Amino acid sequence: MALPNGSSVLINGERLLHRIAELAEIGKIEGTKGCSRLAFSDADREGRDLVVTWMRDLGLTVTIDAVGNVIASTHEDGAAGAVMAGSHIDTVGTGGRYDGNLGVLAGLEVIEATISTDVELKRPLAVAFFSNEEGSRYPPDMMGSLAYAGGMSVEAVLEVEGADGTVVGEELERIGYRGAAPCPGVAPHAFVELHIEQGPVLDNEDIQIGVVEGVQGISWTELTLIGQSNHAGTTPMSLRRDPMRVAAEVVVAARSIATEMGGTQVATVGSLHLHPNLVNVVPATATMTVDLRNTDENSLQLAEEQLHIRVETLAKDEGITVEARSLARFEPVEFDARIVDQIEQLAQQTGLSTKRMPSGAGHDAQMMARICPTGMIFVPSLNGVSHNPAEHTDEADLIAGAQLLSDTMLALTEVDW
Amino acid sequence: MALPNGSSVLINGERLLHRIAELAEIGKIEGTKGCSRLAFSDADREGRDLVVTWMRDLGLTVTIDAVGNVIASTHEDGAAGAVMAGSHIDTVGTGGRYDGNLGVLAGLEVIEATISTDVELKRPLAVAFFSNEEGSRYPPDMMGSLAYAGGMSVEAVLEVEGADGTVVGEELERIGYRGAAPCPGVAPHAFVELHIEQGPVLDNEDIQIGVVEGVQGISWTELTLIGQSNHAGTTPMSLRRDPMRVAAEVVVAARSIATEMGGTQVATVGSLHLHPNLVNVVPATATMTVDLRNTDENSLQLAEEQLHIRVETLAKDEGITVEARSLARFEPVEFDARIVDQIEQLAQQTGLSTKRMPSGAGHDAQMMARICPTGMIFVPSLNGVSHNPAEHTDEADLIAGAQLLSDTMLALTEVDW
Repeated sequence: MALPNGSSVLINGERLLHRIAELAEIGKIEGTKGCSRLAFSDADREGRDLVVTWMRDLGLTVTIDAVGNVIASTHEDGAAGAVMAGSHIDTVGTGGRYDGNLGVLAGLEVIEATISTDVELKRPLAVAFFSNEEGSRYPPDMMGSLAYAGGMSVEAVLEVEGADGTVVGEELERIGYRGAAPCPGVAPHAFVELHIEQGPVLDNEDIQIGVVEGVQGISWTELTLIGQSNHAGTTPMSLRRDPMRVAAEVVVAARSIATEMGGTQVATVGSLHLHPNLVNVVPATATMTVDLRNTDENSLQLAEEQLHIRVETLAKDEGITVEARSLARFEPVEFDARIVDQIEQLAQQTGLSTKRMPSGAGHDAQMMARICPTGMIFVPSLNGVSHNPAEHTDEADLIAGAQLLSDTMLALTEVDW
Repeated sequence: MALPNGSSVLINGERLLHRIAELAEIGKIEGTKGCSRLAFSDADREGRDLVVTWMRDLGLTVTIDAVGNVIASTHEDGAAGAVMAGSHIDTVGTGGRYDGNLGVLAGLEVIEATISTDVELKRPLAVAFFSNEEGSRYPPDMMGSLAYAGGMSVEAVLEVEGADGTVVGEELERIGYRGAAPCPGVAPHAFVELHIEQGPVLDNEDIQIGVVEGVQGISWTELTLIGQSNHAGTTPMSLRRDPMRVAAEVVVAARSIATEMGGTQVATVGSLHLHPNLVNVVPATATMTVDLRNTDENSLQLAEEQLHIRVETLAKDEGITVEARSLARFEPVEFDARIVDQIEQLAQQTGLSTKRMPSGAGHDAQMMARICPTGMIFVPSLNGVSHNPAEHTDEADLIAGAQLLSDTMLALTEVDW
């Protein structure tokens, strides 16, 4: 795939930064750079209204589908045949200003810059923001892009109830974003998502661009370990059936499985509850989660099996019982090798340092990869901090990422699959 | 110390069982055998009123001290020179009917049986119930006996605030048990507490009587482990500073320290909180408790040191920081060897099987041991279950324990120290 000649467009970095800052004023967390715009909340509506205004001001065709996904296109046919950028503008409860928003506003900037240069493209450009990527208020995460790609029905989406008792359909209606456009949506010609890394690798290695090869497969398991509650003083060690002890050994085992397998395998125990959780009582139960991820499905299955065997052995040793429940299971996603190569080549041509890497987090791009050739670009996150108001990416990195998105999108307009 | 001749008194087992059942009606947890009579609650007042009525019906001299401890004596001088039985009648929030209550009602039964046989004793008999032994509503546990023995001032007791915002002094006043008798109280001639084991040893080994040699020393430490919160998918294992991992290794270390030291050493992690406690986030902090107990002070110190070294090493390995805070520290207590021998000898003479053992739990007797020769008798707890409505001791064991308490108290009336 050759670099298209004559179609290079310089984006306006100042304008992009200004829009990021303006959107970050909505749901701003005082005293921080962060935002709180939970999906389908009033703040989400305000954020949506602002971005839609910008889209309309550019004369784009804006469509809103049945689950609130918004697409703006340079052509009245919308996504059909277009090279599409996109991401999300909802945030976690205490989020940063770049996660998601960067990809949407950079896509908008690519379109504005292209329009203003009068360059003739072979295909339309489009930019999308998908509903409820974070999943903080309503499960699952990546809800909007999952539905767009046909992985979840509109009916199922609209019925989802949040922990606060509200229902997606009613909230969508309330904020005025239950649209008429069909869902699942039209497959675009290609999809590219620019996103902050949300991990420390690029920052640690001082690299400007992450060329994302795919998204790790995710396996979430909840283990309920049921032992025997007993007095901490009067129960000899040999007579204990202590679920905390087994939970601890499982944490140690998960770490050692990930370390021994190496590669992209990671393992995390992020949540653990004891009952009754008192200083002087051997717990009756321990409920914990294990989060396993790998870019390779066979390796992920191997990690799951090893964990399962260790849990069974440890529980038997201690004389406790275990109930295991799958909370989530996604197979790894591989992005389109042609787009991955294209991104890497364009970055290197403009002198940017690059690293091929998997995404450890889930992104809308992995849903779009089900229906069209897809790629992703990462820019560094300071210290890997994300889902936190302290989330930060240097301005130069934001602009470099947006320019690379532009170069990639314009190159993809020249390509036939 | 010889068995006193002619002073054996047969207790009335039916009357004892009836009183245990009647007291258990107050604060009864419906559908169970258990009770909820938290210290200084309305249910505690009702329980106190019932037991005080029984004391007065026997013509005993009843005194109530400044922290609500109640003493009934066969002599108008109260505890002075008396052989005293005693325990507590408050319970944990979801407690059993035997914990504490047995020792008080058995002491009352010994006095009633003695009065009705017209036996002449060289010393008075007394029975006490101490305030707030459980410490479930107000810290510390064993509050009443601690104050009685001079280990905590009346002023300090009255100012204690509970988690519910109430204050001991006000609640004592409210329930009418802020008495006029002096506190610290008079040292009796001797003190004996009959109690259920609250552990599984006697039940497991099918032994009728535990001859308690002392109370384990207790060391409670809270550890706050402060790491770096990170995304579970995007943070490579090698870059993690995970407090959950260190907490898990500390649990494993605590278990191995106790197992390797052997003897009476036990170690328990009963409480652990993660923050933010989410499936896909490496925790920022883990707060956990470690409960160490041993009957030997030097061994307990050794266990504390070993734990400290392991915590420091593990934290350094992972690059996290640790804050340690002592929540409680009691040195081991040894009961009076003459009383311990006496209890064992009397039990064996009546054909009861015995086992010398430490108490793993704290008891009022350990406070009384500060001011007078003291001993303790255990009867079995089914499966070691206690602090639970399912707490159970067979009737035959309750009666055998009460008869042994009677034999021991009468024997002690014959002894001069």
